[in-house]
Amino acid sequence: MYVNPLAVLKNIRVVLCTTAHPGNIGSAARAMRTMGITDLALVNPRRYPDPESQWFAAGAMDVLERTRVCASLDAALADVSFAIACTARRRDIAAPMVDARAAAAEAAALARGQKVAFVFGNETYGLTNDEVSRCNLLAGIPVDPEFFSLNVAAAVQVFCYELRIACGGALPPERPPQLAALAEVEAFYGHLERTLVATGFLDPRQPRKLMQRLRRLFGRVRLQTEEVNILRGILASLVRPRPRPPGDTER
Amino acid sequence: MYVNPLAVLKNIRVVLCTTAHPGNIGSAARAMRTMGITDLALVNPRRYPDPESQWFAAGAMDVLERTRVCASLDAALADVSFAIACTARRRDIAAPMVDARAAAAEAAALARGQKVAFVFGNETYGLTNDEVSRCNLLAGIPVDPEFFSLNVAAAVQVFCYELRIACGGALPPERPPQLAALAEVEAFYGHLERTLVATGFLDPRQPRKLMQRLRRLFGRVRLQTEEVNILRGILASLVRPRPRPPGDTER
Repeated sequence: MYVNPLAVLKNIRVVLCTTAHPGNIGSAARAMRTMGITDLALVNPRRYPDPESQWFAAGAMDVLERTRVCASLDAALADVSFAIACTARRRDIAAPMVDARAAAAEAAALARGQKVAFVFGNETYGLTNDEVSRCNLLAGIPVDPEFFSLNVAAAVQVFCYELRIACGGALPPERPPQLAALAEVEAFYGHLERTLVATGFLDPRQPRKLMQRLRRLFGRVRLQTEEVNILRGILASLVRPRPRPPGDTER
Repeated sequence: MYVNPLAVLKNIRVVLCTTAHPGNIGSAARAMRTMGITDLALVNPRRYPDPESQWFAAGAMDVLERTRVCASLDAALADVSFAIACTARRRDIAAPMVDARAAAAEAAALARGQKVAFVFGNETYGLTNDEVSRCNLLAGIPVDPEFFSLNVAAAVQVFCYELRIACGGALPPERPPQLAALAEVEAFYGHLERTLVATGFLDPRQPRKLMQRLRRLFGRVRLQTEEVNILRGILASLVRPRPRPPGDTER
């Protein structure tokens, strides 16, 4: 039976602890939704529900509508098997800390058939040691050490993005471009060379490496049939007698 | 000569075209700054400067102070050698589209000694075809096809995060935990087994696989010396005569 690997995203929960700004809750909901993650729990938010959350959620209403407000982190994690504390700073507590990509890989592997939570702290002081002690793993986003103040919804965005990638998320498949066949491209090079000789730019007695360099340039382009036709049309126009402007009489 | 690979981030420019909400400009500046990217150009922003930009920048003032406002995308890209159009949707124009990670890898490779720009469009309608036609590459973030409305500052965050990782960005190196030596751990297992026999949980004539399972459990833990000492202290306390509560007389 084929199982869509993205289905494990249904087992990912985002937990926001003591969030101060309702706008951040909305932005986090939107960030989650874009990545296909919809399970949000709030532990003691300062203001929720709030119109500002709805405004910043920008249509991710299905996330906000099922969002649970919990009185404690323990309540938010009761049915969770593995919790990851997302934090900018290391702790005194000796706990391993991994980066967001490694945490996402671990979560994607564990979340088949059990719930995995990503826990984020308050905007100003982050996660408390008490909150971190509920978690199995510390995870951080590599940031500039001189300015590490990542917005909480931006951190949610990065973790959820890494989760989607870890679960096989990719751009929709693309139809490959219809490249011109080698014979078409060689005919173009021949046409190009004859034209450059005819217009006087290329001296056939001293060709230097001009055609080699032009081949290198057009080789990188990966020409398509339509493009070869456009280029050959331009070449043909260069050696045709130009149409005279109206009223211009032959001398 | 050692060159810090993160130094190429100085050659990355973020270009925001016709941004409607000044808050998004501030959020984008903050997102860039956390990843060590500071060159921001705005093409025809609806409102800028604006107190809301400063509020959302949350201290990334060095980015906002050097931000240039340009009258056209051509002006914003004049000194740029390679421009990447960051877009959610494919175009009719036959252009290759890569994901954010591949685009960041390409930019990191190209940005040594020349400028590379990531170009983002308006919040509502994205990049115009005219804007895209100025760029060398299309790049997208894999999103849920049922809800692909990524906030522009969130998209900037993801691209800048991928750029920092592509340039070798990592969590600060960690002192490895001081793990207990094998002899200490074996002494603990011996102590544990004797204690379980003494307390009656382990029947030495029918040990089953108890010790194997406990070894597997504690092996995963990667015990540290201090933790071994704590656990052995607990074991020792179990077979010591317990102190009697005060006033409890011997019968």
